[in-house]
Amino acid sequence: MAAFEHQLRVRFQHTDPAGIVFFTNILVYCHEAFEEFLRAGGMPLEEFLGKREQILPLGHAEATFKRPFRVGQLVTVRLTVGRIGERSFRLEYDLFSEKKEHLATAATVHISVDPKTGQSTNIGPQLRTLLEKYAPPA
Amino acid sequence: MAAFEHQLRVRFQHTDPAGIVFFTNILVYCHEAFEEFLRAGGMPLEEFLGKREQILPLGHAEATFKRPFRVGQLVTVRLTVGRIGERSFRLEYDLFSEKKEHLATAATVHISVDPKTGQSTNIGPQLRTLLEKYAPPA
Amino acid sequence: MAAFEHQLRVRFQHTDPAGIVFFTNILVYCHEAFEEFLRAGGMPLEEFLGKREQILPLGHAEATFKRPFRVGQLVTVRLTVGRIGERSFRLEYDLFSEKKEHLATAATVHISVDPKTGQSTNIGPQLRTLLEKYAPPA
Amino acid sequence: MAAFEHQLRVRFQHTDPAGIVFFTNILVYCHEAFEEFLRAGGMPLEEFLGKREQILPLGHAEATFKRPFRVGQLVTVRLTVGRIGERSFRLEYDLFSEKKEHLATAATVHISVDPKTGQSTNIGPQLRTLLEKYAPPA
Repeated sequence: MAAFEHQLRVRFQHTDPAGIVFFTNILVYCHEAFEEFLRAGGMPLEEFLGKREQILPLGHAEATFKRPFRVGQLVTVRLTVGRIGERSFRLEYDLFSEKKEHLATAATVHISVDPKTGQSTNIGPQLRTLLEKYAPPA
Repeated sequence: MAAFEHQLRVRFQHTDPAGIVFFTNILVYCHEAFEEFLRAGGMPLEEFLGKREQILPLGHAEATFKRPFRVGQLVTVRLTVGRIGERSFRLEYDLFSEKKEHLATAATVHISVDPKTGQSTNIGPQLRTLLEKYAPPA
Repeated sequence: MAAFEHQLRVRFQHTDPAGIVFFTNILVYCHEAFEEFLRAGGMPLEEFLGKREQILPLGHAEATFKRPFRVGQLVTVRLTVGRIGERSFRLEYDLFSEKKEHLATAATVHISVDPKTGQSTNIGPQLRTLLEKYAPPA
Repeated sequence: MAAFEHQLRVRFQHTDPAGIVFFTNILVYCHEAFEEFLRAGGMPLEEFLGKREQILPLGHAEATFKRPFRVGQLVTVRLTVGRIGERSFRLEYDLFSEKKEHLATAATVHISVDPKTGQSTNIGPQLRTLLEKYAPPA
């Protein structure tokens, strides 16, 4: 089972007066990894939006924070695909420090929506093929 | 069982190219309600930080999105206390539109931490009293 | 010469590890005042976007920071109209603390753009009338 | 006169319902380049904060926007040092698209402050040496 990895730097403006990353920014990091996952798979999110064939709004998000993320840290986000349904899919994230400390886990559920009707719709074949490459064996 | 309510306006910069609020901002709205909950209870978060007696980092966050949040909308965040442990507590959020549509549910788990040691510590008595006012009957 | 005033609270997530508001958020506060200015004038920004008659992207922004903005502070943004051209206008902002300390000044220049062509276009009559109410006498 | 260059990707969450980057995020990009400039010069901003010898709050910021920044774009921020005073310095930024289009110019003025007193203080020798490498010849 393949994993997609994306690295990013914790920025000054992501952290709060307690000196650690404000929690919602950790989910922003996960979405950034998702954007790079789509880009690496040849279907960047901005093309979805441009063509307006399908949008992928979130139905659910969750995160468990194990250790503080500190300003200046280099973070690796490891993305795998947790479940692929007809009209939705679940992504799992593990976030690590440079010293391989496990900082957080997270998950997002994305729903395939037809922007013309606002209704859920089947995941398109190109996206399904990409997701299956990173999904656990059936 | 009491609930604390906070109203806020969806801002232009909270929304994304799909025209709806980027999901992490919905958790920002919940934290804003938490900040107002503490302020209304006479213990604003900035005082926690100033005195440095106790900080309240998140151990977990989750949200389920039922309907899109659109720019300009007035949103009501309804906060209740879900569970109070020795060293952590869980807050529950329900978010509604002006038309009383249920837009999202969310929850955050906060851990009471001693900033001098970085270790978890008992929830202080003033905060516990405030939380109990909004918790379900035992 | 009239001024439009908007009040807002400095949020935990607006501040950085130095304990003061990250500078770009002060310009976010100004834009929030601009959104409320349009709303109070009967032409909320989301309607501009919905009707797609005219969009108002920024051509310029500037801010001078006099004192730190601290978490929990209540800030008043005082907006006036600095100059109204054929196809652009300049807004001026003064930001004050509850104790009437002058925290910052800022300005934004907005260009009236036709979203169909991407070209600048004359400011519409309803917006011009609103701007003139808050502009200095000719 | 040397320039420091930093590349970054426009993210989904940086853009607004008009489909272009919300203006304050362009100043966030400039600060990100400043953080990388300090890091490359061997004095990352998080060390300033840790040692608390000197903090570098902004006294002024400005930006002129020439073309829209769109989601997915790769942006190059070119940073030069505009002026070095006793207790403050000015940074200049030019932002380019992959096609070398000039997207925006910006500038920030940073004040050297002693965090113990909150008063301005002389720029330290290590920072001055770094700034001079990127400043115009006297």
